[in-house]
Amino acid sequence: MPDWTALKECGLFDALSESGREQFLPPGIFYWSGRAKKEADINATIGSAWGPAGEIGQQGASTTFYLPSLHTGFAGISPEQVFSYAPILGVASFRQTWREWILEKCRPSGRELADLISTPAVASGITGGIASVAGLFVTPGESITLPDRYWGNYNNVLVRNIGARITTYPFYDGKDFNVAAMKTAVDESLASQGKAVVLLNFPNNPTGFTPTAATAQQIAQALEQSAVESGKWVIAMCDDAYEGFTYTRDCLQHSIFAEIAGKRGVLAVKLDGISKEFLWYGGRVGCITFAVPETMVPRKDLVTGELEEKLSAVIRSSISNCNHPVQEIVADGIRDKLGALLAERARVIDVLAKRWEVYNREMEKADLAVLKPLASNSGFFALVDLVSAKAEEVAEILMTTHRVGVVPIAASGRQSLRIAFCSVPQENIPKMVDAVFAAAAEASRR
Amino acid sequence: MPDWTALKECGLFDALSESGREQFLPPGIFYWSGRAKKEADINATIGSAWGPAGEIGQQGASTTFYLPSLHTGFAGISPEQVFSYAPILGVASFRQTWREWILEKCRPSGRELADLISTPAVASGITGGIASVAGLFVTPGESITLPDRYWGNYNNVLVRNIGARITTYPFYDGKDFNVAAMKTAVDESLASQGKAVVLLNFPNNPTGFTPTAATAQQIAQALEQSAVESGKWVIAMCDDAYEGFTYTRDCLQHSIFAEIAGKRGVLAVKLDGISKEFLWYGGRVGCITFAVPETMVPRKDLVTGELEEKLSAVIRSSISNCNHPVQEIVADGIRDKLGALLAERARVIDVLAKRWEVYNREMEKADLAVLKPLASNSGFFALVDLVSAKAEEVAEILMTTHRVGVVPIAASGRQSLRIAFCSVPQENIPKMVDAVFAAAAEASRR
Repeated sequence: MPDWTALKECGLFDALSESGREQFLPPGIFYWSGRAKKEADINATIGSAWGPAGEIGQQGASTTFYLPSLHTGFAGISPEQVFSYAPILGVASFRQTWREWILEKCRPSGRELADLISTPAVASGITGGIASVAGLFVTPGESITLPDRYWGNYNNVLVRNIGARITTYPFYDGKDFNVAAMKTAVDESLASQGKAVVLLNFPNNPTGFTPTAATAQQIAQALEQSAVESGKWVIAMCDDAYEGFTYTRDCLQHSIFAEIAGKRGVLAVKLDGISKEFLWYGGRVGCITFAVPETMVPRKDLVTGELEEKLSAVIRSSISNCNHPVQEIVADGIRDKLGALLAERARVIDVLAKRWEVYNREMEKADLAVLKPLASNSGFFALVDLVSAKAEEVAEILMTTHRVGVVPIAASGRQSLRIAFCSVPQENIPKMVDAVFAAAAEASRR
Repeated sequence: MPDWTALKECGLFDALSESGREQFLPPGIFYWSGRAKKEADINATIGSAWGPAGEIGQQGASTTFYLPSLHTGFAGISPEQVFSYAPILGVASFRQTWREWILEKCRPSGRELADLISTPAVASGITGGIASVAGLFVTPGESITLPDRYWGNYNNVLVRNIGARITTYPFYDGKDFNVAAMKTAVDESLASQGKAVVLLNFPNNPTGFTPTAATAQQIAQALEQSAVESGKWVIAMCDDAYEGFTYTRDCLQHSIFAEIAGKRGVLAVKLDGISKEFLWYGGRVGCITFAVPETMVPRKDLVTGELEEKLSAVIRSSISNCNHPVQEIVADGIRDKLGALLAERARVIDVLAKRWEVYNREMEKADLAVLKPLASNSGFFALVDLVSAKAEEVAEILMTTHRVGVVPIAASGRQSLRIAFCSVPQENIPKMVDAVFAAAAEASRR
C-alpha cells in the first residue's frame, strides 16, 4: 500500500471516509503490464486476444482481435439507439436477445432451461455484475467460497468493495477439478452462515481450466446435496467471462450454469457478457441471469422479478444505467448476423487453440523440479507453479533478461506465473516458454 | 417498499445480505414516467431534451435531441478505438481533451485554473462519479450538506448506497440562493465531523435555478471562510450535469467550480459529463476533476495523483473500467469539430430557452393561493410548490383528467411538481400549464 504522503501532509487523508482511507489498487497486473508495454518484446500479461491482423482476416499490423461484423454495426445505428437512456436493467430487445443467446449456448447440455431462467439484466461489464450480485447476498464479514486459483480482481471486488471474506479450497485434484474439496468448503460455509455463496469460473482465469461434463455434473450435484442437506440456499455464481473458448473436446463446451440451473436449493446466477465472448472488451456490457430450482418454476417470474427490483436499486444508486449503443449493436448483431459473428469468432478461437497447443507441447519439456505447468484446456491464460523460486524474481528476470512480460502471482502459499497466451503470437510461444524455463531455473539456483 | 413476498416464501430473502434486504428502488420518477408513456399526451416527466426533429434540423418525427456531428463519429471509428479496454481512469487522449474542455468552459470566469485542476478521471456517468467521490469522503453515518431541493436519486446514491446522512438547508432566499443558510449548515457539519462534504448542483435539478455570478462568488467565499475558520477541509462537489443550459444572461454562465477552485481549505470536485452537456444520455461517460487550493499548487500533482489512485481502486473494484468507444468519439468530436458540436447544441439550447420563456410567461398567471412557481433560469426542469394540495393527488388528476405527466415530489415538508419542460414541445406548454392550474385548483378544493 502507498504511504499517501501528499494526502497526509495536507490533511486530506483525515477527510477521507473509513473506506476511502483503505482504498488502494494492488499494483500486480498493472505494474507488470505497464512495464511489459515498455520493456518487453513478448507481452504475455494482457488479458485480451491480440495478434497479427491477418490471423483474423484483416489488413494491417497487429491488433486486438475483434469481430468485424460487430464493427460494421457502428455504421448503421440510429440516433435514438445511440443517444437516449437505456432503461436501468437494460434495453428490452437486448435483454430478450441475450436470453435467447443463453438458451442457444446452453442447448448442447440437453437441459431445458427456458422455464428456469430470468431475462438477463444488464450490468457494467461482468465485473459490475459480480459486484452487484455479491453485494445483494454477502454481508461484510460473510464468506464467499472460491477455489484457491482465482482472478486477482476478486480480491478488490469481493473483499475490498463488498467486504466479503474469501474462503478457498484446492482447485485441482491431480488434473481434475477438486469437487470433494469444494463440497467440504461449501458445507463448512453452510455450517457457519445462513447460506453459501459459491463463485465458479470456467474457463478459468488464471488456470485456463474447464472440467469435463461429468465433473461439472458432479459439481452441480454436490451443490444441490449441500443445499438440501443443510436446508439452506446455495447461491452459485457462474463467472462465464471466457465462455466458448475451449480447445479440447473432452472439457465442458457450455457454461456450468446449464448444469447447476434448476437444482434444489440452488440459485444459479449466470454472469456473462460481451468482453471476451464477443471480443468487445471496451463495450462494458455484462449480463446477470438467475435460474431458480425446478421446483419453483411456477413462481419463477415472481422470485426473479423481486431480485431484479433489488438489482435495479443497486444499479440506479451506483451508475444509473448502462451504455445504450453497445446494447443495440450487440442485439442487432446477434439477431441479424449471428452466423457471421460466430464464424469470425471461430477464427479467433482457432488461433488461440493453436497457441494453446504449441504452449502445451513446449511446456512438456519443463523440468518438473523447477516448474509445474497446470492442466488447462480453455480460456485466455495458463498458469505454471514454481517449485522453489519466487514468482516476482522470475518475472523480473524474464522482463529484464529475456524481454518477456508475465504476471507473477503469490497467493495461497504458492508462487506462480500467469501466462496470457491469448496475446502472444504463435511464433513467439516456443521462445517465450524457453525464456520461462531459463528464468525459473536461474531464480531457483539463487 | 415492496413486501418481497416471493423472496420470503422461498427463503431467499434470508439469504440476502443486510444491504440486499434493504435495497429497493423508490418508484417515484419511474412510476410516473412509466404511466406517462402509456397514458399521457404531454409527457413532462422525462429528463431528456425531446421534441420535433425539425427543431434540431433533422428529418422525421419527434426525437431525443442529439448532436448530429457526434452521430457521424460512429462511422469512422477504428476497431482499436471500439473494442480494446479503456484504462481504469479513462483513455488518456479523452482525459486530456476533457481537461482542455473544462478550461475552455471556465475561461469566462476570468480565473486561471490550469495550475489548480487535475486531469479528469472517467466514471460511469455523473452518477458513477458522485457515488465514487462520495464513497471516498463519507463514512456511513456522516453527513452531506445539500439544499432542500435536490435530485431524488441522491437519496439512492448517497443515503442507500454510501450510507451518508443528507443534511439540508433552505435552497431559496426569496428568488436567490440562500448562501447564509448554506454557510450555517456547513458550519454545523464542520462542528460535528472532521470535514464538511457539500454538494452543489447548478443548473439545478429539480428547480432549474442557477445563482448569479455575485452569489456564486459568495458561495465560494462562504465555503472558504468555513474551512479556514474551522481548520478543516470542505469537500465541494459540483454536480455540473446541466452545465451550459442557461436561459438568461444574469445567471452564472459557467460552472461554480471555477469560482470555488483554489479557495483555501476547499477541495473542489467537478462532476460533469456528456449525458446532458453533449446530449448523449446513453453514453455513460462522466468525469471527476479535482481542484486544489491555490496554496497547494506546487503539490497539486502529488495530491491529486494519490486521490486518483484511490479512485482507480474504487473503479477497478466495482466496474473495472468504462466504455471505450464513447470516450474516443467524444474526444475526436471535441478536438476536431467543437465548433459544429457547440452550434448544434446552441440550437437545442435555443429551443429549450423558448420553452422556458413560454413556461414562465404562462406561469405568471398562476393563482398564488394555489401554487407557487419557483425562480428558475436554466436547466431541464422547473418546480412549482403546491400551497395546500398533495403533489400525488395533483399528478393523478393531471394524468387521468388532462393526460399530462409530471413528477410529484413530497420532500422536506413540501408538496411540489417537477415539470420537465425539456421534453415538452413549445406549442404544448400553455396547455400543460393550464392543466397544472386546473388540477392544482381541483385538488386544493378537496
